[in-house]
Amino acid sequence: MSPPTRTLTVALGERSYDVVIGAGTLPQLGEAVARATKATAAAVISVAPVARRYGAAVSRSLAAAGLRSHGLLVPDGDASKSLRQAARLWDALLARKLERGAVVVALGGGMVGDLAGFVAATYLRGVAFVQVPTTLLAMVDASVGGKVAINLPRGKNLVGAFHQPRLVWIDAATLATLPRRERAAGLAEVVKAAAIRDAAFFARLESAGERLLEADPELLLPVIERACAIKAEVVSQDEREAGLRMILNFGHTLAHAIETLSRYRGILHGEAVAIGMVFAARRSEALGLAPPGSAARLEALLRRLELPTEPPRFPRRAYLSALAVDKKRMDAQIRFVALRGIGRVESVPLAPAEILPPTRAAGGPAGRRA
Amino acid sequence: MSPPTRTLTVALGERSYDVVIGAGTLPQLGEAVARATKATAAAVISVAPVARRYGAAVSRSLAAAGLRSHGLLVPDGDASKSLRQAARLWDALLARKLERGAVVVALGGGMVGDLAGFVAATYLRGVAFVQVPTTLLAMVDASVGGKVAINLPRGKNLVGAFHQPRLVWIDAATLATLPRRERAAGLAEVVKAAAIRDAAFFARLESAGERLLEADPELLLPVIERACAIKAEVVSQDEREAGLRMILNFGHTLAHAIETLSRYRGILHGEAVAIGMVFAARRSEALGLAPPGSAARLEALLRRLELPTEPPRFPRRAYLSALAVDKKRMDAQIRFVALRGIGRVESVPLAPAEILPPTRAAGGPAGRRA
Repeated sequence: MSPPTRTLTVALGERSYDVVIGAGTLPQLGEAVARATKATAAAVISVAPVARRYGAAVSRSLAAAGLRSHGLLVPDGDASKSLRQAARLWDALLARKLERGAVVVALGGGMVGDLAGFVAATYLRGVAFVQVPTTLLAMVDASVGGKVAINLPRGKNLVGAFHQPRLVWIDAATLATLPRRERAAGLAEVVKAAAIRDAAFFARLESAGERLLEADPELLLPVIERACAIKAEVVSQDEREAGLRMILNFGHTLAHAIETLSRYRGILHGEAVAIGMVFAARRSEALGLAPPGSAARLEALLRRLELPTEPPRFPRRAYLSALAVDKKRMDAQIRFVALRGIGRVESVPLAPAEILPPTRAAGGPAGRRA
Repeated sequence: MSPPTRTLTVALGERSYDVVIGAGTLPQLGEAVARATKATAAAVISVAPVARRYGAAVSRSLAAAGLRSHGLLVPDGDASKSLRQAARLWDALLARKLERGAVVVALGGGMVGDLAGFVAATYLRGVAFVQVPTTLLAMVDASVGGKVAINLPRGKNLVGAFHQPRLVWIDAATLATLPRRERAAGLAEVVKAAAIRDAAFFARLESAGERLLEADPELLLPVIERACAIKAEVVSQDEREAGLRMILNFGHTLAHAIETLSRYRGILHGEAVAIGMVFAARRSEALGLAPPGSAARLEALLRRLELPTEPPRFPRRAYLSALAVDKKRMDAQIRFVALRGIGRVESVPLAPAEILPPTRAAGGPAGRRA
């Protein structure tokens, strides 16, 4: 008997798609892909450690549903979100004679989804795309919403597209093998979903606290479902990030700067987002936008989830320069997502100096001191 | 007083846009760009010979409408439709701090439009795009329809997107400086538009004959307008080439193979299309799809327009191998656009061997002999 699943729909007219959430559901993937795409051939893009664990189950499931599948590996790590890897993949798809009716399946974390999605968006001017996220971060954030991209030397996600998947298939059983640190990083985006949109959900996360770090599907499935639902709601209302969708960038202005300055090394995206959210909350309080104590409450939850909350110490001018290529910048001002209280955020235009006020200390953003 | 213009609308819902046709209208471009995009900054992508003639007029016109503009040049020639040039342009846009609200203006022929359009489609996940075609080919074909792409070593247009322009601005006065050979190549796509959709227009082209090769706006403006209108009609009904739009590929299956085998050297796209159309018409007659004499009538008009009609002699196996990466291929069969009579075509699935039957001759496609 197949394990039960819950299905959310991301409502985007003719580009609508289902997010199917369950545990132990990889064997049912192929049938769902065939139904959602009508494809008869698939490229499954992954990284070696994930392909070793789940590649065979995925290709068996695709074969059982009548899809010829080709496994394609990219090196693990965010550095693979590059033009070089995209070019390798385009060439591999051509070498395997995959045509317009084929589907690209991303099996892995956010990097794999973003890269494979960009390749799918542009290969032969666009082919079908399915997300099979195997990290908590990708499940609750990257795999829903259609944002795909690669990095350039000047910054993150600078080249990409909006290319909605035809299906997102979440098998929470894959989280059992995910390192604890990566589960924590995924929880940062769960906390973000709650902080921007749902105070009651935030309170439930506070009740669960460190228990969220265990890979317990019973506890995690409703959490994943609520986080995905929040994202789906926002994306449905603003597919191309013209307005509302910006609220999903809460904590991301600083997070992207930290990732750029760290050259994506030694810090996970969710960790950078945790730091960025606390920073944004402190700035919001300092600017009188959020009630006192909001930042402390956010920080306390993130710390219980073993997430960092203090920015690494790079010189202020390095932070300012990293912010200047952030693609959310509009004219001279940066659209900064400010906290208005737990469960509510707002995008406000700020000058870089308001985001990063000068400080007497030697380096680092001045969030705490301002 | 501004010269008169005629406006066609490409009806695509929220992605609809105007094609504005006139002569001597470059000074009015800036105002139209500002109205269509609300942008305050523009990158004008061009090649040196075109920028030398029209770059100053374009940037003056943009400045007068309140747009800060940056001229970016790529080397002339189809070889610039490459990942390398796209990467250079992305970097140049970042270096000039162009943001999501900026517009990319393509000033030049089809190569410039395809490359600049691909860069616009992917830069920061997509920015506004305006086409200012300065070749007849680009005016009547490439600039309308939103197909943008770059080439890969394995073939033409293998990576790209559907990214509709916000405006297409056709100033037929720019044709005066276009070499006669390039005007002829543009007329090949005009003949194609007539052949696939409008027998009366085809007859008017036959009446005008070689006079079409003169850069006479009075004669050319209605011809450009009708060719654009045919393309706009087809694109409006099938934006993403799911069905009807394939008819625009009449002559293109062989044309792309010829271009690949020639490494895009020594032959213009319109010339390859002229050869491909005559080949397709002959094959259509041989397969009993078109009435006898159709191919001869098409060939006669193309010859009067000084266009080649015989395929270059590459080995048959080279043609077959070039066809196999044609992105229009579906499964084992190729969607081949067959002529059903002047003014009417139909997409039919054919095996490569039906398109290129074996021949006793040493090489070259066997269109004439079959």
